[in-house]
Amino acid sequence: MKLLYPTSLVIDEKSLEGFGVSLHSYNPKETIPENLIDAEFLVTWANSAQCLKDAAQRMRNVKWIQSLAAGPNDVLAAGFPSSVVVTTGSGLHDHTVAEHAVGLLLNACRRFFEMRDYQVQSKWPGHLGGPQPDRPKGKFTSLRGANVLIWGFGNIAKTLTPHLVSLGANVRGLARSAGVRNGVEVYGEDEIPELFSQTDALVMILPGSSATRHVINEKTLKLLPNHAWIINVGRGTSIDEDALVKALEDGVIGGAALDVFEKEPLPESSPLYKAPNCIISPHAAGGRPQECEALIAHNLRRFLAGQELKNVISTT
Amino acid sequence: MKLLYPTSLVIDEKSLEGFGVSLHSYNPKETIPENLIDAEFLVTWANSAQCLKDAAQRMRNVKWIQSLAAGPNDVLAAGFPSSVVVTTGSGLHDHTVAEHAVGLLLNACRRFFEMRDYQVQSKWPGHLGGPQPDRPKGKFTSLRGANVLIWGFGNIAKTLTPHLVSLGANVRGLARSAGVRNGVEVYGEDEIPELFSQTDALVMILPGSSATRHVINEKTLKLLPNHAWIINVGRGTSIDEDALVKALEDGVIGGAALDVFEKEPLPESSPLYKAPNCIISPHAAGGRPQECEALIAHNLRRFLAGQELKNVISTT
Repeated sequence: MKLLYPTSLVIDEKSLEGFGVSLHSYNPKETIPENLIDAEFLVTWANSAQCLKDAAQRMRNVKWIQSLAAGPNDVLAAGFPSSVVVTTGSGLHDHTVAEHAVGLLLNACRRFFEMRDYQVQSKWPGHLGGPQPDRPKGKFTSLRGANVLIWGFGNIAKTLTPHLVSLGANVRGLARSAGVRNGVEVYGEDEIPELFSQTDALVMILPGSSATRHVINEKTLKLLPNHAWIINVGRGTSIDEDALVKALEDGVIGGAALDVFEKEPLPESSPLYKAPNCIISPHAAGGRPQECEALIAHNLRRFLAGQELKNVISTT
Repeated sequence: MKLLYPTSLVIDEKSLEGFGVSLHSYNPKETIPENLIDAEFLVTWANSAQCLKDAAQRMRNVKWIQSLAAGPNDVLAAGFPSSVVVTTGSGLHDHTVAEHAVGLLLNACRRFFEMRDYQVQSKWPGHLGGPQPDRPKGKFTSLRGANVLIWGFGNIAKTLTPHLVSLGANVRGLARSAGVRNGVEVYGEDEIPELFSQTDALVMILPGSSATRHVINEKTLKLLPNHAWIINVGRGTSIDEDALVKALEDGVIGGAALDVFEKEPLPESSPLYKAPNCIISPHAAGGRPQECEALIAHNLRRFLAGQELKNVISTT
């Protein structure tokens, strides 16, 4: 049996040996070569759409596809038969996305973006330095003492929370199902009005789906205090960008730090680029699967043992 | 007996009651009024130089001055007699400076400053997003796995370290005296050549003094790898800015994120503003003493009991 792994990242092949499966690298930007087309197992990362579409047609023996993306929309769109098991790379991006989220939160409350605008003009933004009021009411100036609400409470939120707590934030979660997770109180979506009204920073880590589309909209934006920031490291579709631009321009909220957008790359015509108190990051939070060998080996072993795989999604 | 506290920050007067000392607020930007001039105790924060100079002449009964600054150069320069005990606000700025340092480190490795330069032109910095190599050798792209060296290992470093460790950094310290502090290996300055050569990010938290002047200079800059960043949240005098500008322009180091400068505000003519990979922050790390009441009450009680005070500095 053959397992194909992509050359789009460094994979330690030795970590995948010992299963009696032959290991072969392939270029994910080209079609799979003829001598590898009979492989049973395919690992994908940053494949071209053409590569995947071609593989869906020509790889007749493929039984399991391990994507290294948290949301492998590319594999799902390629047209593989529904008998092929697809597993996601959920968990491989927790640390990188959590780090980026901490960075965006600090960029927001410490106003590094505004400092930069002064710097490029060789100007000193004196109003942002020197003696300042300590955590004034109605402003988001520090994570210490800030109420941070995380919407979407999976692996990434669980990785992010301890960093925020150690910096002094009061962290609460928001998800479809309420309960205590990893010591954090997670509330149900029926409590949004009360939760939003107490929020200094809302961190969005929702997946893209019809259920999460435009959950941040004109109506929900008005539930936030007018100093509150929104940080989005989930999917761009969860925010109605027109409503967000208006809220930023009208001072309905304090700001937005966005790593994901309804359309990426964000078109030059988007008013988000120049909206006040808006930070644009080019889908840079994740993009670097970490320790993927452990997940691939885990699922390979389970597949060969006839066990259920980790991170399975349905292709139907 | 009278204690005077400044109106330049919010102080909870109730936390200072019960000592049999009358409490009076005063405006630190004006001279002390006649009816308060006989006070024994003076708390200072963001006082005007004129206020302090006048107080040094007119406050004949003052015995103890509690500054809320970590380095109260203003009080020392005012001309109080050497019999007046001066205590610093060391410890009141640990959390704020540590938070700012984390923010500057993430700004550096996640390149938020470069993203901002694209954003203001309505451009998408595609090279900073999407699939990326994970922690490539010879680059500072994440705190995870990064070697961070903290020069100056006092309260702030001790507060900063756990945040960096939890984000995955390997943290070592550098100070005049070597040893293990709070579980962190702190090396002596004789080990600089070896330590620097292994450093991805050097965080400077040194006080300003003749001993720390220009410790970062043409020679020591060359000891760092050419991808290494310098973060300075200590005092500007520890860096030879001309040498730093040249090192940035020549690619001798990876970048610099500076909150303090040899001259503040940084003059418009400084080439640091436009040096490549340079982040300018307007002395904004601290500036917000936190929980100062506990320190004031602690020292007031000790003064009245005839005990040695905390954070005493010599005025001679």
